[in-house]
Amino acid sequence: VKLATVATPKGPRAARLADGGEAVLLPYSDVVALLQDPSWKEIAQNEGEAGEFELGPLPAVRPARVLCVGLNYRSHVLETHNEVPEYPTLFAKFPTTLTGSTSDVLLPVASSQVDWEAELGIVIGAPAYQVSEADALDHIAGFTAVNDVSMRDWQRRTSEWLQGKNFDASTPVGPVVTTSDEIDSAADLLLTCHVDGVLMQEARTSDLIFNPAMIVSYITTFMRLEPGDLISTGTCGGVAVARPDLPFLKDGQVATVTIEGIGSCVNVFRDEPIAEGDRT
Amino acid sequence: VKLATVATPKGPRAARLADGGEAVLLPYSDVVALLQDPSWKEIAQNEGEAGEFELGPLPAVRPARVLCVGLNYRSHVLETHNEVPEYPTLFAKFPTTLTGSTSDVLLPVASSQVDWEAELGIVIGAPAYQVSEADALDHIAGFTAVNDVSMRDWQRRTSEWLQGKNFDASTPVGPVVTTSDEIDSAADLLLTCHVDGVLMQEARTSDLIFNPAMIVSYITTFMRLEPGDLISTGTCGGVAVARPDLPFLKDGQVATVTIEGIGSCVNVFRDEPIAEGDRT
Repeated sequence: VKLATVATPKGPRAARLADGGEAVLLPYSDVVALLQDPSWKEIAQNEGEAGEFELGPLPAVRPARVLCVGLNYRSHVLETHNEVPEYPTLFAKFPTTLTGSTSDVLLPVASSQVDWEAELGIVIGAPAYQVSEADALDHIAGFTAVNDVSMRDWQRRTSEWLQGKNFDASTPVGPVVTTSDEIDSAADLLLTCHVDGVLMQEARTSDLIFNPAMIVSYITTFMRLEPGDLISTGTCGGVAVARPDLPFLKDGQVATVTIEGIGSCVNVFRDEPIAEGDRT
Repeated sequence: VKLATVATPKGPRAARLADGGEAVLLPYSDVVALLQDPSWKEIAQNEGEAGEFELGPLPAVRPARVLCVGLNYRSHVLETHNEVPEYPTLFAKFPTTLTGSTSDVLLPVASSQVDWEAELGIVIGAPAYQVSEADALDHIAGFTAVNDVSMRDWQRRTSEWLQGKNFDASTPVGPVVTTSDEIDSAADLLLTCHVDGVLMQEARTSDLIFNPAMIVSYITTFMRLEPGDLISTGTCGGVAVARPDLPFLKDGQVATVTIEGIGSCVNVFRDEPIAEGDRT
């Protein structure tokens, strides 16, 4: 099943999406609220009604807790560091950092180094505290695509990356949450990022150092995860900051993060917001 | 005015506290909800009703956004590093990390290095985005005390401190939020931490490298702060990890963080939670 938070004339709604692009609107205001219902699998499968909707202006999920993993693709770590890390590197995003899979992203005046990061996002489906690796997949609802857009100049001002990772409405999430059963728990999905159609990043999720089950188990050692919580699993090689020949994102450029079985975040980066009437 | 989220027989409530310890219950479920009402100053001053309450089991505020500053006391930085930092070091706590000013804090099995950190907390009182230093104090409701309890072994596993700073219910906040007008915007308050009555940390907020106005202005460059949001401003010298002669916190020890004009967080650290009936 593919789930998404869609825009409707009456406001945001959770929806189930068919491959043809049709949606069935579900009786919840968003996917996080849906997942908080312990019967969400049955509801997502069987309930709902047709209705007018738009997919893309809202993040697929906007939970209270968003965690991110750094340095998590073997090929990328070996290429830039010497050692595979012993523990996952974790940092946080505030929910207000998230944006839609088709939303424009503002290039802030304060940063001149806005970079892309294609990532697999884990969406929690059941409360999880001190869960073993063997049991962790039972607590995952599904997976989404994340562009962990990073302001490198701010990220590198101090040891802690937060300030380069939390510009408001800078992190596209979506277009959908594909449930685990449809994509073999994201064990081996192709992940890419294109900028203006040029391939910048390409990896398979089987190259993750800490896979989804390991990450969920590790985090729940110290904190309880709740349904809807999002964990972005880290990016692979090919970001601008690691390639001095490549410029950072500029006005009008399009970054496209695609994950097999999930779909694409396609976002235009702009120096100025476009007024509604000027949109083409 | 001193505000707090108190426990009542009917659940959490915002309250105004008098110096004698009496409380007036306000018509909001907590201080964050109160501060989200643009008329909160008038309401906090003039409304409410007497009622049964307990101060301490709940954090004074539990907002959606909790930011923390590291390395922010001049004396401490100069003692342990060579340079005063150019930018504030920022990291995040999830709301579920917060706990009450009198709550027991569990010493987790997973960590053997649980440390104290006395900190001044800023509580936002009006939405703030791209606010200048000169205007920042107008967006601050008041100040509270925070014990930014840190699991040093986890904090040091990777470059990002989050995992050592986000054990569930490990960060006492309170007992009250004292409004800015009562304490000269926290410009020069005495801050201490005692462990079992022995003074471990002592500083004045006038020694902050980045003061509250600078911190709020800096953060709002990249994100909008909302009423109730909490920013913990960093700790001074005297933590266990910097003093090899001192052990980390052990079962039954009491850490007391006190700030002049605000009050104390007094928390017992325990290997096992105490059953309600066994409390003395």
